Amino acid sequence: MSAHDDRTDVDVVIVGAGLSGLTAARELTADGHEVTVLEARDRVGGRLAAHELPDGTVADLGAQWIGVSHDAVMSLVEAFDLELTAQYEDGHDQLVIDGDRLAAADATQALPSQADAELTAAVDELETLTAQLVSNDPSATPQAETLDATTLESWKRDRIDSTVARRAFDAFFQSEFPVETTDISVLYFLTLLDSVGGIERLVGETATTESYRLVGGCQQLAKQLAGEPGDAVRLETPVRAIERSDDSVRVRSDDTQITGSYAIVAVPPAVAGQIEYSPPLPVRRDGLHQRMPMGEVIKFVVAYEDAFWRANGYSGTVVDADGPVRLVADSTPPNGECGVLVGFLTADDAVEWSDRPTNERRECVLSALQDYFGPDAGDTLEYVDCSWSTQPWSRGGYAGNMTPGTLTSYGDARSRPTGRLHWASTETAREWSGYMEGAVRSGKRAAAAIGDRLTE
Amino acid sequence: MSAHDDRTDVDVVIVGAGLSGLTAARELTADGHEVTVLEARDRVGGRLAAHELPDGTVADLGAQWIGVSHDAVMSLVEAFDLELTAQYEDGHDQLVIDGDRLAAADATQALPSQADAELTAAVDELETLTAQLVSNDPSATPQAETLDATTLESWKRDRIDSTVARRAFDAFFQSEFPVETTDISVLYFLTLLDSVGGIERLVGETATTESYRLVGGCQQLAKQLAGEPGDAVRLETPVRAIERSDDSVRVRSDDTQITGSYAIVAVPPAVAGQIEYSPPLPVRRDGLHQRMPMGEVIKFVVAYEDAFWRANGYSGTVVDADGPVRLVADSTPPNGECGVLVGFLTADDAVEWSDRPTNERRECVLSALQDYFGPDAGDTLEYVDCSWSTQPWSRGGYAGNMTPGTLTSYGDARSRPTGRLHWASTETAREWSGYMEGAVRSGKRAAAAIGDRLTE
Repeated sequence: MSAHDDRTDVDVVIVGAGLSGLTAARELTADGHEVTVLEARDRVGGRLAAHELPDGTVADLGAQWIGVSHDAVMSLVEAFDLELTAQYEDGHDQLVIDGDRLAAADATQALPSQADAELTAAVDELETLTAQLVSNDPSATPQAETLDATTLESWKRDRIDSTVARRAFDAFFQSEFPVETTDISVLYFLTLLDSVGGIERLVGETATTESYRLVGGCQQLAKQLAGEPGDAVRLETPVRAIERSDDSVRVRSDDTQITGSYAIVAVPPAVAGQIEYSPPLPVRRDGLHQRMPMGEVIKFVVAYEDAFWRANGYSGTVVDADGPVRLVADSTPPNGECGVLVGFLTADDAVEWSDRPTNERRECVLSALQDYFGPDAGDTLEYVDCSWSTQPWSRGGYAGNMTPGTLTSYGDARSRPTGRLHWASTETAREWSGYMEGAVRSGKRAAAAIGDRLTE
Repeated sequence: MSAHDDRTDVDVVIVGAGLSGLTAARELTADGHEVTVLEARDRVGGRLAAHELPDGTVADLGAQWIGVSHDAVMSLVEAFDLELTAQYEDGHDQLVIDGDRLAAADATQALPSQADAELTAAVDELETLTAQLVSNDPSATPQAETLDATTLESWKRDRIDSTVARRAFDAFFQSEFPVETTDISVLYFLTLLDSVGGIERLVGETATTESYRLVGGCQQLAKQLAGEPGDAVRLETPVRAIERSDDSVRVRSDDTQITGSYAIVAVPPAVAGQIEYSPPLPVRRDGLHQRMPMGEVIKFVVAYEDAFWRANGYSGTVVDADGPVRLVADSTPPNGECGVLVGFLTADDAVEWSDRPTNERRECVLSALQDYFGPDAGDTLEYVDCSWSTQPWSRGGYAGNMTPGTLTSYGDARSRPTGRLHWASTETAREWSGYMEGAVRSGKRAAAAIGDRLTE
């Protein structure tokens, strides 16, 4: 433990025991610094959440996929001796559009040729624009102001004429980002594409962002990380106020306050914005907190006796342009004794369905699954779902997204420290923003920046 | 005082002692109901704030203008026996654009003819579109989805070619709404225009939204309202959490909790979103809280020995397309012994200048005023300003605005109660949203809805 000022309780106070905050805690602790993590929920993991299936194996109600180039997450998997399993991809995907179920080795190949041509042209243009993006200063990109003033929806309508191709564009978009194309700008979308290394990593047969799952579920990552700092993680302690001084940062919850030489707020911007700051945050920082609303998503997990769809030649992957179910995928545990499908209602559909009773959602989802996979899909062992939009300490999922006009006016505040107060969460990551990988990288970045100062 | 449940402390707990909350308190109290108002600041008034000038008269650092059809505010002015003064409009306005200072009886008449023609056509189209808006259900407007997916900036660029006309459009827009045209949709803008009764009420010689000021300043309205409920207004009591049950609503601050049969949250959506709610709010409500960021504004007040610009034939009104000062107006107290100009830095300019030292802002503003009114404008009695963007319990000004895509997906939650929890603030008003008039009307609406239930 490094020496810290007598008037401080610890070296670093961390707000949020999600993947970013716990990663920062681990890195700082490993370097000999003392940390306390304050978590509002009664569990660690943030947007990672485990659900035990009837056979005793674990499914993810939150984040679940790991990409082949997710080096930071892979290091944790290795460090904790956890086991990966490859995402099942044999058999045919399905693309549902205007009531037609189209099957192909990959959902993107299932489109009628004219729609496919329109969509390909749009994807090509997005690739060109992404190549022109100035990654470390998006506002310096050619036509940045115009691209940030244009919603992705407007852009799409100007380029794609046919209804089928427009709806396919939305379907593939929402299969990755649970927001409406009306809600983000073209420029912000380009940063998302850039953040994953290009659109080819997201769609088509060469996609590599959803390659693996973690046997036993991803919340293990958080539990393993939280285990290491010892009893330094305090649950059910929502932070209400943060006071900065030249020497320290005081973090207040309802019945406790902890002062650190530094602090890290490791929650999404929309949640960070719920805290009272004194002195007030710089305008660009608070403005960002007001302008990165969370996506909207309901995730469901359905367990069956076995993965019956595989025998029928289906991969389990469905991209549904008609909704309200938007994406389905096989999540059968490799060593388990049941078959599992997971799926998502996204954006406006998630808004519409979040406030309805679970049994209505169950009926809606099982009806859709029977359309995709036949009557066997109605014969379930278990149905469970989670609306992340109604989770108070997430306020939505998978991540916060900047509204049109925000990136050029507030974007440079994204990861910039405010005095002794640093910012983490996947939304602050330039690479893999919105993914577990971005969360881990953001935690490492914040920890490194503070570590450098603590050991100066 | 009406009978209330033994387990409740009062009939209605009100969060926020701004104009909407205090109006609701007054109405409920007048009907015999017991209320408690919890206010985070050490003063009442919210976005109304008084500043005493060197001559002892009062200027408004916050909201200051009252329109001729602001009936609800006018009733308060009458009830409290306050004095109105007409906004000074004699002499020439100035329009500054690309370094040229153009003078005319009204700033809108100062444009070169080609730019004027383009702007007039755009205004005409906005009038037509506003007439087509379905006021009580904007999503039912023809082409609502497209209009909500299109930023006002995209719309403008598609219709206005010349740089001068585009910049004039922005200048007139920002003289009323301190946000970038990139940040709102056409549909939302139409609701703002509809809310004031049409664009002709905002621009040109027939504009009637800024007709009067209140002698002694507008915060008097809040002080008078707060005086009436007695000691029912508690200052420096920020609300952290609100718990709803079937019978009551419990409102918690750091060191107290008050239970009412009902509660009204009378703060802007971006501030309401900082409170923890249990059970969690419906998705549409929390989604709205995440999607109505506040505008950005710095208001300055400059006092002189006298209103010297009047003698030079100027009204004091300046609309500056070049910025960073965007709007200036005469605010000389009618019975005072000094001349006063007020003005605004808005949107991106307010973001840029809010985090700089006051003396830099002073220098910037006084330099601009000397450009407009000559060297006498440098000879001040006093300069004072307020960045509303750095005020923690406002988070910006004049009001919150829905981001693109929000109105069609979340708009119907705007004023809909959540069980026993009701919502006020000018942002929830359908008429005069963003104005003091909207705040008062929203308070009356919420009070009436609860009053009906309390006396059932």
